Amino acid sequence: MNMQEIIQDKRDGGELSDEAIRFFVSGVTDRSIPDYQTAAFLMAIVFRGMTEREMTTLTLEMAYSGDVCDLSGIPGTKVDKHSSGGVGDKCTMIVLPIVASLGVPIAKLSGRGLGFTGGTIDKLESIRGFKTSIPISSFVEQIKKCGMVLSGQTPELAPADKYLYALRDVTGTVQSIPLIASSIMSKKIAGGADAIVLDVTCGAGAFMKEESSAKELSRAMIRIGAIAGRPVTCVISSMEQPLGFAVGNALEVQEALEVLSGKGPSDVEEVCCTLAAAMLRRSDVGRTYTFDEAYSAARETLRDGRAASRFLAFIQAQGGSLESDGTPSFTEQSVLRSELTAEKDGYIKTIDALRIGEASMRLGAGRKTKEDAIDMGAGITLRHKVGDYVRAGDILLSAYTGTSSELGEEEILDALAIAKEGISFSDAAIEAPKEILAILDENTVNPF
Amino acid sequence: MNMQEIIQDKRDGGELSDEAIRFFVSGVTDRSIPDYQTAAFLMAIVFRGMTEREMTTLTLEMAYSGDVCDLSGIPGTKVDKHSSGGVGDKCTMIVLPIVASLGVPIAKLSGRGLGFTGGTIDKLESIRGFKTSIPISSFVEQIKKCGMVLSGQTPELAPADKYLYALRDVTGTVQSIPLIASSIMSKKIAGGADAIVLDVTCGAGAFMKEESSAKELSRAMIRIGAIAGRPVTCVISSMEQPLGFAVGNALEVQEALEVLSGKGPSDVEEVCCTLAAAMLRRSDVGRTYTFDEAYSAARETLRDGRAASRFLAFIQAQGGSLESDGTPSFTEQSVLRSELTAEKDGYIKTIDALRIGEASMRLGAGRKTKEDAIDMGAGITLRHKVGDYVRAGDILLSAYTGTSSELGEEEILDALAIAKEGISFSDAAIEAPKEILAILDENTVNPF
Repeated sequence: MNMQEIIQDKRDGGELSDEAIRFFVSGVTDRSIPDYQTAAFLMAIVFRGMTEREMTTLTLEMAYSGDVCDLSGIPGTKVDKHSSGGVGDKCTMIVLPIVASLGVPIAKLSGRGLGFTGGTIDKLESIRGFKTSIPISSFVEQIKKCGMVLSGQTPELAPADKYLYALRDVTGTVQSIPLIASSIMSKKIAGGADAIVLDVTCGAGAFMKEESSAKELSRAMIRIGAIAGRPVTCVISSMEQPLGFAVGNALEVQEALEVLSGKGPSDVEEVCCTLAAAMLRRSDVGRTYTFDEAYSAARETLRDGRAASRFLAFIQAQGGSLESDGTPSFTEQSVLRSELTAEKDGYIKTIDALRIGEASMRLGAGRKTKEDAIDMGAGITLRHKVGDYVRAGDILLSAYTGTSSELGEEEILDALAIAKEGISFSDAAIEAPKEILAILDENTVNPF
Repeated sequence: MNMQEIIQDKRDGGELSDEAIRFFVSGVTDRSIPDYQTAAFLMAIVFRGMTEREMTTLTLEMAYSGDVCDLSGIPGTKVDKHSSGGVGDKCTMIVLPIVASLGVPIAKLSGRGLGFTGGTIDKLESIRGFKTSIPISSFVEQIKKCGMVLSGQTPELAPADKYLYALRDVTGTVQSIPLIASSIMSKKIAGGADAIVLDVTCGAGAFMKEESSAKELSRAMIRIGAIAGRPVTCVISSMEQPLGFAVGNALEVQEALEVLSGKGPSDVEEVCCTLAAAMLRRSDVGRTYTFDEAYSAARETLRDGRAASRFLAFIQAQGGSLESDGTPSFTEQSVLRSELTAEKDGYIKTIDALRIGEASMRLGAGRKTKEDAIDMGAGITLRHKVGDYVRAGDILLSAYTGTSSELGEEEILDALAIAKEGISFSDAAIEAPKEILAILDENTVNPF
């Protein structure tokens, strides 16, 4: 085996043998393949793509390039949930308590956020005392206690993927369906999942801008999962505008609790109940659900308090503090700094999720580089969504920072200016956009 | 300027600005761009190509990335000659004395060989005492003496090209017309050429296997030359079978001298007179030649002794020794080790130049790695060429090594076995192949 020949094979459109892919991943893991060869190979994949077999082999080799999380001590089918990221995406905090309250054991490894998309771990750390490093050895114990556990990813999981991702980030080789699909799937498999529900976000504030690419990515992951024996369901959800009203860490935790209590924005509830239903259908909780039955069961837990109490129990199990009224106690309070108002009457046509995410990051809610600290109180709350009719002077959104923020008025106005660029109006009525664009699995490759 | 964005632009099919290309070449030269970004960028170029303007800017930036040879002290148009390499390609040693004897000042920087193609510098070093490191400061003086000077390339010429070539070699990014064209042209421009004649070899023993790619490469170099103000003529010559009969260093010098004396193989003479004619037409020796006139003038120097005596004067000017009979004195004598004979009667259909080159390298005539020493006496002489009729038992070729070679019988037979694989026969008569496939310049883009 010779990396130069492997590069040339892929460059010329050949299909790589399992042995060649194994050679590549093991050479990336032990650093015996120089970065320049890896970079040229990745660019050749960007242009030539990969077959299903190649993608699956790459996925499994990366998954087993380091530690693999052994969840066999937890009885039942472990269903994992992953989102390809978005602005205001607080779904993990809502979906997990829903399905845990319905008997699905949840042991999830979750990441941090970079750039305009926030990570669940970051969001939960806005709660005073919340611990995000839970040793895998104590997963079983916590699941017995509250049915769910969530921990920051350990660095030993899928190190080849981690290394490749860092290289792709600086060599223009991120945008490749087979590379994205194998990266996501390798982490999920290394995380010990038996079945996987993927929220594939799509639109201005997501990685996939077009529904067609989101579907292509979904099909790739479903096929990898089928070959690797980890069934996958993909929910393609819209990320043109932010999900819900709240963007920012503590702000999103509060909105998550509202949804869990049946009082949250309908778009968040719809996406979360869809994801929860897909997870329920992949689980083995003693009964078989149709999609509608599963959706109703999920929605019911928001109405009768089961989901909310499960979430609060989970917070306490991981060391988080609650206020005397039973709500989470935050490390930072959110202080209202400024508001953006409509300049004229009209229907809201767009609220560009990317712009809102950038504005929120400017306020302190996200990291520009890995080293940045996050202002847990910072963020944006929308007052309106696409399709709403507003009058000149109506408040469109509010900007918050934490109490200890050092941002001056000018920086706040700069952030609001970015948010403003993403909002457009129409004289004609605008229909509220669909949240769920498609649900795909190994049986239904077409949108439902 | 940001290398990551430049990579993405090229990946997405964009045309790079001159500024972006300048940023890239300067970052390669000062090592501020990491190899992995360069490698990904080169692979994107393999797939996306480059426009004429991009290629020309890349060429000029690489040409001026280090020292540029200043030949302004030599009066007249300095016409350089370059071959894309082949087996038995001794043309430089023949063409340069021809045109020098017709008044064209020749100051050439030449390279060493690697793999199955030999370098002119290596070949001339088979002559006892021949010096290949001639300081540029003494070029004018030697040209006054014998009209021509030839020196090994200094490492300071086009360092960006040198660095990129080494990286391309190990990242599967050699095969790209714009990268090959800009690499060749950058070295010629840095070498101080006013006009350039390129021997673009084509066939089994050449880098370009197909005539169509050889033409595409030629057109790219002609266009770069036109934009850069260095007119280029490309002679596309066949390299299916070796050129002439001799392959190997001292063996080729001897055959070169035969051609220079009007007694060499007709294929070598034809290619050399064509190249010499193209150079004459690019020169300013006081008269204008039609192609036929220039070809006849070149051929005449082989008949009347001017070319041969110019070659011998050149050898002596660079310190080479002659025997008492006036022929070059070699560091190694060629010892006949074995011969390959025909197994049956028939017409020779192919003599694969690549196989003969590999066989000759096995005998010691070429380097596998940069560090290998060359056996100056080793090589192969063909007894027949494609189209010849042979009878069973006729000698096809002879294998030589130098007197001090340590190769055993088995290694000689292994080399002959490789040569044998490249020779095929036909019962039907085979036409001798054409040597010159096309001559292209800025006016005639079609084959003549």
